[in-house]
Amino acid sequence: MTSYSTAETKSVTADNGVDYAFRSIGDGAPLVLLQHFRGNLDNWDPALADALAQGRRVITFDNTGVGATTGRTPNTVAAMADDAIEFITALGLERVDLLGFSLGSFVAQEIALHRPGLVNRIVLASSAPQGASGMHGWHPDVIGAVGGRETSAEQYLGVFFAPTPTSLGAGQQAAGRIFGARTENRDTATSWETRQAQYDAVTRWGIPDHAKLQRLSAITQPVFVANGDSDPMILPRYSHLLAGLLPDARIKIYPDSAHGFLFQHHKEFADDVETFLAA
Amino acid sequence: MTSYSTAETKSVTADNGVDYAFRSIGDGAPLVLLQHFRGNLDNWDPALADALAQGRRVITFDNTGVGATTGRTPNTVAAMADDAIEFITALGLERVDLLGFSLGSFVAQEIALHRPGLVNRIVLASSAPQGASGMHGWHPDVIGAVGGRETSAEQYLGVFFAPTPTSLGAGQQAAGRIFGARTENRDTATSWETRQAQYDAVTRWGIPDHAKLQRLSAITQPVFVANGDSDPMILPRYSHLLAGLLPDARIKIYPDSAHGFLFQHHKEFADDVETFLAA
Repeated sequence: MTSYSTAETKSVTADNGVDYAFRSIGDGAPLVLLQHFRGNLDNWDPALADALAQGRRVITFDNTGVGATTGRTPNTVAAMADDAIEFITALGLERVDLLGFSLGSFVAQEIALHRPGLVNRIVLASSAPQGASGMHGWHPDVIGAVGGRETSAEQYLGVFFAPTPTSLGAGQQAAGRIFGARTENRDTATSWETRQAQYDAVTRWGIPDHAKLQRLSAITQPVFVANGDSDPMILPRYSHLLAGLLPDARIKIYPDSAHGFLFQHHKEFADDVETFLAA
Repeated sequence: MTSYSTAETKSVTADNGVDYAFRSIGDGAPLVLLQHFRGNLDNWDPALADALAQGRRVITFDNTGVGATTGRTPNTVAAMADDAIEFITALGLERVDLLGFSLGSFVAQEIALHRPGLVNRIVLASSAPQGASGMHGWHPDVIGAVGGRETSAEQYLGVFFAPTPTSLGAGQQAAGRIFGARTENRDTATSWETRQAQYDAVTRWGIPDHAKLQRLSAITQPVFVANGDSDPMILPRYSHLLAGLLPDARIKIYPDSAHGFLFQHHKEFADDVETFLAA
């Protein structure tokens, strides 16, 4: 199998006229990954992508306006979901599993709500439901660290990993894979305009609205909710909230980890995802 | 220290005219226990009560109309909370910790909402919030087992313990303590009328009402939410829902156990409660 760090970046034109950049590794049932704020194709840990692709086809893509994909990034999660549906449809896929991470997990929820027939099973990593109290933008320390025009390695590590030697050590290894494993044909960085639009979508998602929480009752697919126990960006309480409101959810909180728990615990998480998807 | 299995049953008359039967063991900060459906003073596992009383005063009581307490059992959780406040006030206590189990955990939430100044910290065991979808009465198998005029040992074990050799073995030991450790001065059994009123309160608590979930935002005390992973009576998903909506909650799901996880894991649970209350 081709490793994610050397996988070719391809492009597909969807009916909305957008040229979507994507990568695909492995064979089998398609699992579409939905990326976090600021992230492009290169921000998926190759170790995680490779582990997930052992038994299935793993597809990553840049959504509209992100990285090498054309178009203008929309400023609502709902529009991002519609754009993701366009991409999935352009690939000729009629039913997929979804793994959404952070902002991508919001998009995953919205895809399941807009086009339920497209979605088999859903993994929500470092996630929260729309309207949850306390989700209206990230903590000042967090947005200060990763919301600016430039983000240092220390700022990335401070949000994605817990302030312990074990987690930070794992974070340095993950960062080494993310920023070092692929040396050629790296993706285009997300633009400042894209990041602004994404954060607009994040804050809009977090406008407090208790009634909106009830939307989760319409996501009838099996869902695996996962988070790090020390995530400062999207608190683990929101994973419990998802697990309490989704009709068919299981939850796991990974120890000694934060927003990037899925990179830190990539082997364990990939095994858990495989067990869940194969059930 | 007097063991719970030999503690004297006392009585105190509250301002509402009700004579409340209660027991008290240990010394220190008062922890008031709120009992489950059907339960009276004898239905607390003496091993749990004794473990909790190592570092504090543990108080159990029969609420209005239950067991040896006079009066008529009300059919709403709100009225049960008011009655519990009457009892606590009659004891001269101005601030207490609460440990509510099942129906008692509903009462604990309501006490915290009605009289927040009375409550320090709260333990919710096998609990759910008012209005949660799917809580409108218990599963037919469950209410069939414990909702009738008579309940066999097998029916009790089938709800309070998981269908595994380890859990059922622990259940038989707990049942031996609950039904066998105290040989004299046992409490009066709950009447059929009391059980009917209690189950009316349970179903009323479970009338689906998404907006009611937002009441939890007003419980600002630290809360420890706990459940068994296989509880058939009040599903663990409701513990996650509580942890997701309460402003200051921590959650623990105990393995290989059900509604009566706190009796099965009495030592571990008492240690966890002590750590939480002493924090």
